[in-house]
Amino acid sequence: MATINENYLKLPGSYLFAEIARKVAKFKTDNPSANVIRLGIGDVTRPLPPSIIAAMHQAVDEMSNEATFRGYGPEQGYPFLIQKIIDTDYIPRGIHLDADEVFVSDGSKSDVGNIQEIFGLNNTVAITDPVYPVYLDTNVMAGRTADLGANGRFGNVVYLSCNAENNFIPALPAAKVDLIYLCMPNNPTGTTLTKKQLKVWVDYAREQDAVILYDAAYEAYIQEPDIPHSIYEIEGAKEVAIEFRSFSKNAGFTGTRCAFTVVPKAVTALTASGRRQPLNPLWNRRQTTKFNGVPYIVQKGAEAVYTAAGQHQIKELIGYYMANAKVIRDGLLSIGLTVFGGVNAPYIWLKTPQGMDSWAFFDKLLTEAHLVGTPGSGFGPSGEGYFRLTAFGNQENTREAIERIKTRLKV
Amino acid sequence: MATINENYLKLPGSYLFAEIARKVAKFKTDNPSANVIRLGIGDVTRPLPPSIIAAMHQAVDEMSNEATFRGYGPEQGYPFLIQKIIDTDYIPRGIHLDADEVFVSDGSKSDVGNIQEIFGLNNTVAITDPVYPVYLDTNVMAGRTADLGANGRFGNVVYLSCNAENNFIPALPAAKVDLIYLCMPNNPTGTTLTKKQLKVWVDYAREQDAVILYDAAYEAYIQEPDIPHSIYEIEGAKEVAIEFRSFSKNAGFTGTRCAFTVVPKAVTALTASGRRQPLNPLWNRRQTTKFNGVPYIVQKGAEAVYTAAGQHQIKELIGYYMANAKVIRDGLLSIGLTVFGGVNAPYIWLKTPQGMDSWAFFDKLLTEAHLVGTPGSGFGPSGEGYFRLTAFGNQENTREAIERIKTRLKV
Repeated sequence: MATINENYLKLPGSYLFAEIARKVAKFKTDNPSANVIRLGIGDVTRPLPPSIIAAMHQAVDEMSNEATFRGYGPEQGYPFLIQKIIDTDYIPRGIHLDADEVFVSDGSKSDVGNIQEIFGLNNTVAITDPVYPVYLDTNVMAGRTADLGANGRFGNVVYLSCNAENNFIPALPAAKVDLIYLCMPNNPTGTTLTKKQLKVWVDYAREQDAVILYDAAYEAYIQEPDIPHSIYEIEGAKEVAIEFRSFSKNAGFTGTRCAFTVVPKAVTALTASGRRQPLNPLWNRRQTTKFNGVPYIVQKGAEAVYTAAGQHQIKELIGYYMANAKVIRDGLLSIGLTVFGGVNAPYIWLKTPQGMDSWAFFDKLLTEAHLVGTPGSGFGPSGEGYFRLTAFGNQENTREAIERIKTRLKV
Repeated sequence: MATINENYLKLPGSYLFAEIARKVAKFKTDNPSANVIRLGIGDVTRPLPPSIIAAMHQAVDEMSNEATFRGYGPEQGYPFLIQKIIDTDYIPRGIHLDADEVFVSDGSKSDVGNIQEIFGLNNTVAITDPVYPVYLDTNVMAGRTADLGANGRFGNVVYLSCNAENNFIPALPAAKVDLIYLCMPNNPTGTTLTKKQLKVWVDYAREQDAVILYDAAYEAYIQEPDIPHSIYEIEGAKEVAIEFRSFSKNAGFTGTRCAFTVVPKAVTALTASGRRQPLNPLWNRRQTTKFNGVPYIVQKGAEAVYTAAGQHQIKELIGYYMANAKVIRDGLLSIGLTVFGGVNAPYIWLKTPQGMDSWAFFDKLLTEAHLVGTPGSGFGPSGEGYFRLTAFGNQENTREAIERIKTRLKV
C-alpha cells in the first residue's frame, strides 16, 4: 500500500504568480486597449552575448562528429569550466579553491533545493523574511518544519525579519539554529550585507556549529566596493559556508541552464556519534547518484563567459539592466516613495504608500498605470506593505513605465 | 549544531567503476603495447544525427536575437516537445495522455532518483536484482532502508532475483511491497518482459495498492513484437505506474541531457488518513519547486527526434548498435558461452564459464583478450557469476573484440 510524503500536503498552493496572472488577464479583458508593461518578473530579456553564441555553435558542431562527440561527462562538470570559474571568480578575490570543491549544475534552483538532503531532519532552519521561496518550501517538503500556522509562518522555522526598521540587516536569532539560508544581494529586496555585517553571521555559524547556505546568484550586480561577492571573502567562512552561484542573471542563462555550487572540503557537520563529517563528499555522492551533469554544449557556452570578450559582453549586459534599475529607483524617489535595493541588485523594493497592503498597491499600479509588479507579501510575512519591481525589462518599456508612474499614479 | 543525513553513511563507496579503472590502468602500465578495447561502458559513441544538430544550431541562433530569445521556460517542458512525445511515442500504441501528464527533464537518472521524494518513508521498496544502482541508492539516502548486511543486501528492501534459473522473470514478492522498480529492457541483463509477464506485475500492483516505477530508457531497442514499449500498453497500468523515458540511448543524448517522465493523473497513493492522493500534482510540485526546466536549445534538439528525418536517423543509430549486439551475442554463443540479452537491448549478459566469479572473469578477459567489460556482481548480489558487455562501441572495435574472444580466450 504505497503512501505519499505527507509533508507535501503542508504546502499551500503556489498562489503568487497564478493570482498575478489571473488579475492581469481580467484587467486585459476589461481594458482591451491598455498596453500593460510587466516589471514583475525575475527573468532576463536580453539575448545571449555573441561569445557565448559562437561557443555553443562550435560545441553543437563537435557533437556532430564521431571524433569530437561527447557522451556522459563528469557529473560535477567539465574541468575546463571549473578551472575558469576558480581562476576568474575566486583567485582574484584571494579565494583558493580546489577543482573538486566546485560542482557545476543545471541551476541554482536545483542546488538550493537539493542541498538540504545531505542534512539530518532534526536541523532547525533559519531563513530571512521576505525571501525567494525555494529555501523554505524544500525544507517543508523534506519534513524539517511543522505545519503552516495562522500567522502565515511554518512551525519550527526561524524567520529572520528584514525590513525598513532594521535596514534589511537580519538580527542574529534568539533561539539556536543549524542551517541558515542567506541570499545576498537579496531577492526580492535588492539589499545586501557589507563584509562587516556578513562577518557577524560567519562568526555566529562558527560559534554555533551552524552551516550557512549562501545564495549569491546576483553577485555580478554588486557595484559598491565594500559588498562581498563571495562569502569566502570573509575569514573563516570556508569552514561553515556553502555558496551558490549562477550564470542565469549575469550571462542571461535562465533558459540555457547552468550554475555552480562551492562546497569547500573544510565545511563540516556532525554525525549522530559527534564526529565531524565533511560535507563535500556527501554533496558529491548526492550529485553523482541523482544527477548526470550539464549538457556539454551549455558548459562550453558557460566557459565562453570567461573569455576576455565574454567578460566584456556580460558587463555590458549587467550595465544595461542596472541602468534600468537606476531609472526605476530615481523615478520612484522623485515622486516621494521610499525605495530600497536597485544599487547592487536588479531588484527595487518599495514601501507601499499610505500603508497600503501589497495586493492593494498591485491593483492600484495595474489600474492607474497599467503596470505589473510583484506584491511583497508573496515573499513572506515581512514582505507585507512592500512591492518588488525588476530591472530585467527592455530600456524603452522601463522608461515608459516610470513615466506612467510619475504622471498617472496617485500617491 | 548542524547534523548530517546519517543515511548517506549506510552507502558503501562507488566501488565498481573505480575498481575497473584501477585494474585497467595497472594492466596498461604492465603491458604498454596492449590495445585495450572497452565493451564495458553504457554510454553511446555515435555523433548526434543531422536533424538534431540542425535544430540545435537554429535554437542557438534564436537565443542570439532579442525577438526570439528564451528565458525561463515551463519547468515541465515546452508544449511543442510534450505534444510530439505524446503524438509519436504514445498515440500510435493506443495510449492517450494529457499534456500535463508528461514532464520533460534533464535525464532519467534525475527522475528515477528524485521520484521517491513524493512517497512516505515507510514504504517498502522492491528492486529487481541485478539492476542499475540508482533505484536502491536513492532510497538508502532517503532513509527507506536499514543497514547493509553481511550478505550484501540492505535490510528492509525486497530483492527480486533475476537470473538464468527463473529466465530473468522476477517472481512476485512473498512479502508485501509498496514501491516496485522495474527496468525493462533491463540494464544490465538486456532481458525483457512480454506483455503477459508485465501484466502479472500490473495486476499485482492494483491488488496491493503498490506503485510501479517503470524505467523504459531502452525501449527503442526492442525488436520483438510481443514486448511492450510502454507499461501503459498493459490494461490498468495508468492507475498504478509511473514511466521513465529518455533520449540518451535512442538519440545519443547522454551528453546532451533530455528525458521525460509520465505521471498519469489516475495514479494514486494513500495519505495517512486513507485518502487517495493523485501523484501527478505531487510530482508537479516537486519539479516546479526544485527544477527549472531543460535548456531551450536541448528541447529543440529533442523535438527534432520526432521529425520524419529524425525518426529515420535514430532508427539508423539504433540499428548500428543492435548490429554490434548481434556480433557480440553470436560470437559468444559460437564459443559455447551461455548468453542473455542483446536481442531487445544493447546489453549482453553472459554466464561466466566454469562457475568463475564475475571479477575473475574480468581479469581473464583483460589479460587474455585485452578487453574490458563490467562484472555482473557490481549490479547486485544476483549478478555474481555473470558479466555485462555493451553494444555501444564502434563497429570495428566490436568486431575486433569478438575476434579476440574467439581466438584468444581460453574457455
